Amino acid sequence: MESLPIGIDIGGTKMLAIALDRDAPDHVVTTRLVPTPATPEEVISSIIEVARGIAQDVGGIASLGIGLPGLVDSEGILRSAPNLQHMVDVPVRDRVAHALGVDVLIDNDATLALNAEMQLGVARGVDDVVMVTLGTGIGGAVALDGNIRRGVHGFAGEPGHMRVDPNGPLCVCGRVGCWERYASGSGVVWLARQHGLVGAETITGEQLVELGRAGDGAALEVWSQFARWLAIGLADIADILDPEMMVIGGGLVDATDLYLDEARSVFATEVLGGPARGRTRLEPATCGPRSGAIGAALLH
Amino acid sequence: MESLPIGIDIGGTKMLAIALDRDAPDHVVTTRLVPTPATPEEVISSIIEVARGIAQDVGGIASLGIGLPGLVDSEGILRSAPNLQHMVDVPVRDRVAHALGVDVLIDNDATLALNAEMQLGVARGVDDVVMVTLGTGIGGAVALDGNIRRGVHGFAGEPGHMRVDPNGPLCVCGRVGCWERYASGSGVVWLARQHGLVGAETITGEQLVELGRAGDGAALEVWSQFARWLAIGLADIADILDPEMMVIGGGLVDATDLYLDEARSVFATEVLGGPARGRTRLEPATCGPRSGAIGAALLH
Repeated sequence: MESLPIGIDIGGTKMLAIALDRDAPDHVVTTRLVPTPATPEEVISSIIEVARGIAQDVGGIASLGIGLPGLVDSEGILRSAPNLQHMVDVPVRDRVAHALGVDVLIDNDATLALNAEMQLGVARGVDDVVMVTLGTGIGGAVALDGNIRRGVHGFAGEPGHMRVDPNGPLCVCGRVGCWERYASGSGVVWLARQHGLVGAETITGEQLVELGRAGDGAALEVWSQFARWLAIGLADIADILDPEMMVIGGGLVDATDLYLDEARSVFATEVLGGPARGRTRLEPATCGPRSGAIGAALLH
Repeated sequence: MESLPIGIDIGGTKMLAIALDRDAPDHVVTTRLVPTPATPEEVISSIIEVARGIAQDVGGIASLGIGLPGLVDSEGILRSAPNLQHMVDVPVRDRVAHALGVDVLIDNDATLALNAEMQLGVARGVDDVVMVTLGTGIGGAVALDGNIRRGVHGFAGEPGHMRVDPNGPLCVCGRVGCWERYASGSGVVWLARQHGLVGAETITGEQLVELGRAGDGAALEVWSQFARWLAIGLADIADILDPEMMVIGGGLVDATDLYLDEARSVFATEVLGGPARGRTRLEPATCGPRSGAIGAALLH
């Protein structure tokens, strides 16, 4: 038992806490997974509770990093999080640090996932890389010349709310037709409903993965549409940044068998100058769906 | 009479050649404007002809830079240009250099416009800046930390073909619903037709500018829609890059009185985390519609 680097990744539906080995940072010693509660105050309480729990599991907190699905500024304040109970202007870093009596670092969850992939995963040694995390929504991060870009407000790398359809469904952000309404976990469920899949009113992303792997034709058609929407958004980003690599992370990285080949194929035709753009690679995150939590633990 | 730095900006409908003062590079000594012809071979011939013409006007070519509305690679080959007779894999640099017997530098037109704005215009001293040029289509360029980003293939900064409507009109690139179908010179004409403007079948962008300035209600409504589409695409780019400044250039910079205020207002609500993003400025290019040609002449 020793105090270890702890990382917590807060998602729209689940919170994952991990502890990393001090000497082998690619080794996750233990994890805790809890549901994300319904109010901002409960979210803060749950972060504190799960941090205490995993600290007891391993023998203490050597460092604590937290990833949040929204706009985190340089003061550790969560400015906006459409998929997280609309938490606005919440000083998450200081609230958690005060309760636990330890220093806390917080950042955008997808930024931390990219941090993990660049230190331990598929993006090691890649200079220009874009990360998209497919979970409840779509997060993102951008690194150029090996450095994560923050932007003038700290909000760079948020492609989930690019508008891809002016007549699309209402988004949690209040606009319509955002990319994450199609190419995220909630997006694939919406696509299934639009497709009239049997039982679609109550279907989950996990069930769509199972149906697709079982060869269900309607579910495979839904994943095909998902792949197309994913590729269109990735092509939009590549038109702007022309990166060496685009990394697919988030919970849906576990289902790349259902969409990544088709997404690569559609991307090659959708990106401007497709045939002359053969060097941009679309790759799954190799730190797995835990990359956000790992990147948070690596913040120390 | 002395040989001067020459720049030529090739647009979808017009080609502009300029000569810059050697000692005062913000001073345009003379210009020539000719229509862009209909075939790739004629385009090459016209470039050579207009370069010879302006060289005669001023006394010779000290240096020659050419901007092209498409994907230009590091070998000076135009790989793709949807708004330029679909010129594909044309070695423009070497063809023109051979005919004229001078060294030639070529680059993407919007990249050169940003070059001009960063050296002489509104973006002087700005580290993170995105340029969009509104002409026949939409060009673009990105500079971060004061350096223009090229991307892994040299094709960074091409936002015109971001897909903003899956049910939108057919684009010159062969896809549908690209941003430049709405927020460019050809886009505003298309919007006028959709709006059922009187005489819309034969109306031009210039006429829409005149009608708008004369207070024509239907034309103003078209410019309002134009402003909204412009702002949506700019917000998409800002979601990804969070820049300090976004510069509006191209031919339509002369009409910012008709759309820029509304575009700024819509941008502020469309960008993710709008209220917390007050530092991103939308500004007109101050090198004017000639910024591409000026940036080309500054290449020497």
